[in-house]
Amino acid sequence: MSYFDAASAAPLHPVARQALQASLDEGWADPARLYREGRRARLLLDAAREAAADAVGCRPDELTFTTSGTRAVHSGIAGALAGRRRVGGHLIVSAVEHSSVLHSAELHEASGGTATRIPVDRTGRVSPSAYAEALRADTALACLQSANHEVGTEQPVAEVAQVCRGAGVPLLVDAAQSLGWGRVEGDWSLLTASAHKWGGPSGVGLLVVRKGTRFAPQGPADERESGRAAGFENIPAIVAAAASLRAVHAEAAREAARLRELTERIRLRVPGLVPDVEVVGDPVRRLPGIVTFSCLYVDGETLLHELDRVGFSVSSGSSCTSSTLTPSHVLKAMGVLSEGNVRVSLPPGTPEDEVERFLAALPGTVAAVREKLGAPTSRPVAEEAAAPVDSLVVDALGRRCPIPVIELAKVIGDVPVGGTVRVLADDEAARLDIPAWCEMRGQEYVGEEPADHGSAYVVRRLS
Amino acid sequence: MSYFDAASAAPLHPVARQALQASLDEGWADPARLYREGRRARLLLDAAREAAADAVGCRPDELTFTTSGTRAVHSGIAGALAGRRRVGGHLIVSAVEHSSVLHSAELHEASGGTATRIPVDRTGRVSPSAYAEALRADTALACLQSANHEVGTEQPVAEVAQVCRGAGVPLLVDAAQSLGWGRVEGDWSLLTASAHKWGGPSGVGLLVVRKGTRFAPQGPADERESGRAAGFENIPAIVAAAASLRAVHAEAAREAARLRELTERIRLRVPGLVPDVEVVGDPVRRLPGIVTFSCLYVDGETLLHELDRVGFSVSSGSSCTSSTLTPSHVLKAMGVLSEGNVRVSLPPGTPEDEVERFLAALPGTVAAVREKLGAPTSRPVAEEAAAPVDSLVVDALGRRCPIPVIELAKVIGDVPVGGTVRVLADDEAARLDIPAWCEMRGQEYVGEEPADHGSAYVVRRLS
Repeated sequence: MSYFDAASAAPLHPVARQALQASLDEGWADPARLYREGRRARLLLDAAREAAADAVGCRPDELTFTTSGTRAVHSGIAGALAGRRRVGGHLIVSAVEHSSVLHSAELHEASGGTATRIPVDRTGRVSPSAYAEALRADTALACLQSANHEVGTEQPVAEVAQVCRGAGVPLLVDAAQSLGWGRVEGDWSLLTASAHKWGGPSGVGLLVVRKGTRFAPQGPADERESGRAAGFENIPAIVAAAASLRAVHAEAAREAARLRELTERIRLRVPGLVPDVEVVGDPVRRLPGIVTFSCLYVDGETLLHELDRVGFSVSSGSSCTSSTLTPSHVLKAMGVLSEGNVRVSLPPGTPEDEVERFLAALPGTVAAVREKLGAPTSRPVAEEAAAPVDSLVVDALGRRCPIPVIELAKVIGDVPVGGTVRVLADDEAARLDIPAWCEMRGQEYVGEEPADHGSAYVVRRLS
Repeated sequence: MSYFDAASAAPLHPVARQALQASLDEGWADPARLYREGRRARLLLDAAREAAADAVGCRPDELTFTTSGTRAVHSGIAGALAGRRRVGGHLIVSAVEHSSVLHSAELHEASGGTATRIPVDRTGRVSPSAYAEALRADTALACLQSANHEVGTEQPVAEVAQVCRGAGVPLLVDAAQSLGWGRVEGDWSLLTASAHKWGGPSGVGLLVVRKGTRFAPQGPADERESGRAAGFENIPAIVAAAASLRAVHAEAAREAARLRELTERIRLRVPGLVPDVEVVGDPVRRLPGIVTFSCLYVDGETLLHELDRVGFSVSSGSSCTSSTLTPSHVLKAMGVLSEGNVRVSLPPGTPEDEVERFLAALPGTVAAVREKLGAPTSRPVAEEAAAPVDSLVVDALGRRCPIPVIELAKVIGDVPVGGTVRVLADDEAARLDIPAWCEMRGQEYVGEEPADHGSAYVVRRLS
């Protein structure tokens, strides 16, 4: 079994396990108490805070432990917005943030605030100038991830931090995906992270609030963690989180180079091994362990099941793998194909031969899924239809991804060059995937028109 | 070393440790994922939910795991209030709830809601009729602890639940102190608890919302735990929490009888061993492991340090042991002495001889603290003063608990029977402790008058 979903959760690092077990005996008491057991717990908590702060590059009193990365984001955004309420209620986030950031933005809007979502280019990257343009006199806070969790693209955090600092606006950096690889550079004001992403235990997040950043914790008052994280501290897990962060940092340079080479193999070789694939994300400015690609004419959920069956655990941003049946907001913001989407995120230590086995297994797995779906096996547009008609309508209403694109691909050869196909579809993924198919196959995407049910997506054959 | 502060945090139960370690290998992955590791994590989470629900006496889909008891309370109260916003914004809590409940009530008031605090009698118990009288047409929620965390007094939860049910108002029961001893009886609507109170690990709380209870989770949207507890699930800790809850329930009847006998010894023998002591809390309707008493003329912080030095870890509700220098809100609501307060809360398994050692060590420890403070060693009011004057003023301004009471005790013999002593004090504890001293010593507490700085507390000598 090869676990290739480290971006969701990494298996426990041996150092984390050791620290957790060692501190179960010393770290269970209330660190606010004055007796022996409480003092011991306090010592462990203080030492963990110092170690984590050193790894992050901040002062210990700037760092609080939360119960998850999500909680760190929720508390960090709410506290920073409330701390600058007098300045205004405008929030800036990128369109490709983690859902905890985007859901915080939605709640902020529902509570009367405003939010600007910064678009990304086709690699998933924001531009600092877009942040500069979005900053307003009433901007209370800007948020930007250090690197994207679905495609691995690194964001220009230092530049955006500089832009924000120039305007006197704090920048919150969600460093969940990158902190295990090293410090976040730049003059940011707040930072959040999640221990189980770097091999620490579940149940620990970090919230860093730089001195001088206005911050007003929200929710009922609580004395723990400087009032920024309510509830009894989970000290054994905190100790394990801090110890494993130091451990992964010590191994980071060597392991990053190794994983980067392995993901580079996947990036370069998958398009040759599997027809009709789009590798997405920035090819250079990216996390070492993540590579993401989408396969035309493939149902993401079936592909995940098939890969699991042959021993590979990966995740997907395809609509059929989400509870809401919409494609990943990241892929949507990038404007790339979402069907048959596969994210491979290698945990540190992944052996080379597991990656080679994956590359060997992938082509047959994708081909089997495509065959089951009746997908076109070769490039059908190159074939000449017997009696072409100028315009065709494909009714894919009620059919889910990837069927609308498959139906389109099947008939495009039936219209002459210059002719059009109108695909009627009510699946949310079609809006993203039909234009992406056109770009991949060199056809013209004319546009979307309202139809009786769903939409009509119009495609002109160019070749 | 004897750890007698189980009401703050219990050491990890062996079953919890075993379950935690066993599930570190199986429970680290994302239970929302469809691959092998995710399915294994999901199985563990589902099994833990079923076990915990069975122990609580609810349906599995009524129970969510939070990251602490405090979080369960915060989320439970916020969600229940929001779910019944249309009914109104009135909240009922008892005056002796855990701070997480009281702080939630304060936040609710600060947000425009109203709250009624139900008083308690001198044993710390509410009366169901007081809840009945407090219920209004706009009452959205009532809260009552199953048992008090500082004095161990059990509350009439079933009766209050019935009263609330009759009015169509949901009752939230904070069962943090009692759930390890068994199910909470009665027709409650919501229940909260904290695993580290019953020997489970830190980082796990329970929030139960009975079917049919209106509930609207607050905060940013999150798909985990039915939207009621944001952030990645800490499955190893959850598994350990559920396993240890079953384990302590299996041992509860036998261990409760044993601990009840041990705390009964302390209740009965301390007043004979240490002069000028008030044992507080209900002598019968109480938790098995908790006993609380207050010692006149003693500084709580010093007493805790001295007990720690001789090997006993206890806690205190005295003002000098709180960060705000105010006496415990529980002791205040009960109207009992707060100075020299000691809470002994025995963890399951406490050996009899540790309790005997405590009873042997206590008298000398209290006497040493009193001597250091210059407290009266015998009953000074029995001595006749040489030249009594009708009225005396004692200036204890700027002096902290227990000095104002010590100064009062020193001079009461200097006025004739019928004469008065006015104690000038600005320490918050004096307001509680001077009346309590009068009650303990058979003197008349005349009342409090405003003075230039602080207050004047007037006491009339009766004997």
